[in-house]
Amino acid sequence: MSEDKLPSRNENFSEWYNQLVLKAELADYAPVRGCMVVRPYGWALWENIQQALDRRFKETGHVNAAFPLLIPKSFLEKEKEHVEGFSPELAVVTIGGGEVLEEPLIVRPTSETIIGYMYSKWIKSYRDLPVLINQWGNVVRWELRTRLFLRTLEFYWQEGHTAHSTAVEAEEETRRMLNVYADFAINDAAVPVVAGMKSEKEKFAGAVRSYTIEAMMGDRRALQAGTSHFLGQNFAKAFEIQFLDWNNELQHAWTTSWGLSTRFVGAIIMTHGDDQGLILPPKLAPVQVVIVPIYKNDSEKGRVLETVARIQSELKNFRVKIDAREEVTPGYKFNDWEMRGVPLRIEIGPKDVDKGTVALARRDRPGREGKSFTPQAQIAVQVGEMLEDIQAALLERARAFRAANTHDVSSYAELAQVVQDGWAYAWWCGSAECEAKVKEETKATTRCIPLDQPEGSGKCAVCGETASQKVIFARAY
Amino acid sequence: MSEDKLPSRNENFSEWYNQLVLKAELADYAPVRGCMVVRPYGWALWENIQQALDRRFKETGHVNAAFPLLIPKSFLEKEKEHVEGFSPELAVVTIGGGEVLEEPLIVRPTSETIIGYMYSKWIKSYRDLPVLINQWGNVVRWELRTRLFLRTLEFYWQEGHTAHSTAVEAEEETRRMLNVYADFAINDAAVPVVAGMKSEKEKFAGAVRSYTIEAMMGDRRALQAGTSHFLGQNFAKAFEIQFLDWNNELQHAWTTSWGLSTRFVGAIIMTHGDDQGLILPPKLAPVQVVIVPIYKNDSEKGRVLETVARIQSELKNFRVKIDAREEVTPGYKFNDWEMRGVPLRIEIGPKDVDKGTVALARRDRPGREGKSFTPQAQIAVQVGEMLEDIQAALLERARAFRAANTHDVSSYAELAQVVQDGWAYAWWCGSAECEAKVKEETKATTRCIPLDQPEGSGKCAVCGETASQKVIFARAY
Repeated sequence: MSEDKLPSRNENFSEWYNQLVLKAELADYAPVRGCMVVRPYGWALWENIQQALDRRFKETGHVNAAFPLLIPKSFLEKEKEHVEGFSPELAVVTIGGGEVLEEPLIVRPTSETIIGYMYSKWIKSYRDLPVLINQWGNVVRWELRTRLFLRTLEFYWQEGHTAHSTAVEAEEETRRMLNVYADFAINDAAVPVVAGMKSEKEKFAGAVRSYTIEAMMGDRRALQAGTSHFLGQNFAKAFEIQFLDWNNELQHAWTTSWGLSTRFVGAIIMTHGDDQGLILPPKLAPVQVVIVPIYKNDSEKGRVLETVARIQSELKNFRVKIDAREEVTPGYKFNDWEMRGVPLRIEIGPKDVDKGTVALARRDRPGREGKSFTPQAQIAVQVGEMLEDIQAALLERARAFRAANTHDVSSYAELAQVVQDGWAYAWWCGSAECEAKVKEETKATTRCIPLDQPEGSGKCAVCGETASQKVIFARAY
Repeated sequence: MSEDKLPSRNENFSEWYNQLVLKAELADYAPVRGCMVVRPYGWALWENIQQALDRRFKETGHVNAAFPLLIPKSFLEKEKEHVEGFSPELAVVTIGGGEVLEEPLIVRPTSETIIGYMYSKWIKSYRDLPVLINQWGNVVRWELRTRLFLRTLEFYWQEGHTAHSTAVEAEEETRRMLNVYADFAINDAAVPVVAGMKSEKEKFAGAVRSYTIEAMMGDRRALQAGTSHFLGQNFAKAFEIQFLDWNNELQHAWTTSWGLSTRFVGAIIMTHGDDQGLILPPKLAPVQVVIVPIYKNDSEKGRVLETVARIQSELKNFRVKIDAREEVTPGYKFNDWEMRGVPLRIEIGPKDVDKGTVALARRDRPGREGKSFTPQAQIAVQVGEMLEDIQAALLERARAFRAANTHDVSSYAELAQVVQDGWAYAWWCGSAECEAKVKEETKATTRCIPLDQPEGSGKCAVCGETASQKVIFARAY
């Protein structure tokens, strides 16, 4: 960790982000353009995200599996919109074992095609359905402009791929997994999200309908934090995923796919972080509590470390780190753990030992406001309650921030102004022309048509025609 | 699951293995030559292996991280022996985003080089050492002859990479992780292994010394089940991993690497399986107990399922599956779960309901011998004890099998005969000539020089010269 301060968020949000990722040792640049190394602290955060999601996937009946990294080029070409969407972004293996391959292999950008191929082998009858499989893995997309976590050539994610006997069931699954993402984002990451549908223009290449959860970052731009796609029979037809139904008639299956990636780490950073560094939601923080012993001489040290050890043992149900480094000062340690976003700091000095108390410092309320003292005897209860309170406070703050920066707009002029520094919530006629005009003139895109819609209808903020739905326009990552 | 029987292990071990992997739905062939799809049941087994290892890695102070899949070609070329070892096996990305790359990228066959490059950025002082990082991921090696799990183009593994300030500490780490592998293999997988050192000829490309755990499969061939390498300063010099020591002098670090892969799934299959299918060690089995309800009519069904539900709730600390399928018979289910190697089956019929008992069937003792009845009231205790007993019995049986098929040999003729159908334990002078002669004439290789060595010395079983070490010669996977 460097002692240098971060740039302020207000002055240069982008540079604040880049430096924070490096200084908190979440990730580093790899020697290959656009690739990242996820460092142990960042990976521990991702492992906690994985566990929180994986538990939900298993509770909703899904199982994990692993499909190959390398996909025959011809597979990508079987679904027309899919190949158009992904062709510009492919990494291609042309040589294997010293010889030029007859058919080049694509490093998977996503796995609908190879999984579709396998499903066509496995699925024969309605009895084999639904198939509810998820995969944790890495994918590669040859992006031109990259940012650590937000957009990298290789990234880590999970991709769920399911097959069903009816359209209704597949659509239900698509929405169920969208809800799983929203539930995780809100309740574990304290990242408030709007769940909604993507426009035709913004949907996944090969989907009938795409759903998304959209989050507002600290610079008021939107970030697509997870997507769930109803693929209809598009991939089932391209890969001949067919089954005999109850009436012994051959049908194409209905499929879905849904994914959430290491990009979500970026969402957590940009939702909660401040000028001192990261602020991690307690439920996902690799270290929930850091204990910093404070002493001036060996006699103090002995007494303090004894109390530290006892407190640690009482906090065994939390993820606790003791910072016993000798070569740096307590003040350095405070900054260090603030940079890394540890939700709660416990300071224990000789006076605390004498008084039977400890000092607590909340990361979400810097300075005196977040500081309090508590008796050692009640430490486990107190820490548990405070972590819950921090979790709730982070969500509340992010919600308030989003509310303050989301504006109902009724005219195009208003829309164009609002999206420069916030979200516009507007009636939209649904036409691609209006959407394109906004994008061209303001750089804002339709982020989603929220599932939660108001009653009635209004006038399209762009063209003034009657509109039956409201949409969020925003500049996005 | 197909109803067809497996080929017998004695008649055709190789075909028994291939069909078992497919029929138990552990894995399937992918459309790319030599690649596999790990199906949900196989992946659940691998996840249990991962957890058992990851826990041990964390207990020994390691953290996880993620390094890029794609490695610049020039990196591979920096360590001379390393590049010679891996060059023939590389998959090469030459096109990215539609353009030919200036420098081709290798899909990682192993990550010493890219991790070495990052370590050279991160490590500056002795205070930064040791670095103890592990990575869970996928790698690609362009193998010509492939087998599901045992040797596939892409496989899944963990690779630990550590850096230390002294040779002694690095060597200790190498041996510590070898012991972690042995402990996992013996105590969780019930796979007895011999821990030892690889010969110069058989060591990892780039290592100073390689250690291995070797297991005997059901056909008496050896399988290298995990390796740990002391890399000396080879990679530190190639990638300039340097640190300032206590005396403020610049030193090259000492590094290690160690890995265990999905190949271990093959080891479990071939150690324990029988002609009925898989037998999984209880500690790693995705399903530890399957409950099969047995009834003839609706009135029986109601009573039986009620008992089944109660038994299930009492077994909540175990991984339990209820097979309530209506379209197949109990006999079909028995075969099905035997094929999948579930350690313990509970059968519950109307008579059991009346008597307050259940029938237990142990997978490791087919037929009547493994069948018993137990009062429902004691089910949780009984199941726990029986699973422990099965775990121990599997290890004991594998140990006895290995002992019966490992032969002390004192002459070359004896050695050459023994290795056709077992392991030879022989004095070896250590010369590459003797090793090469055995390989050429018998196809057996030196598997390892066991760490546990007898006192004294003997005569090399090949050349008759004085030998100070014993070695295992065997034909291997």
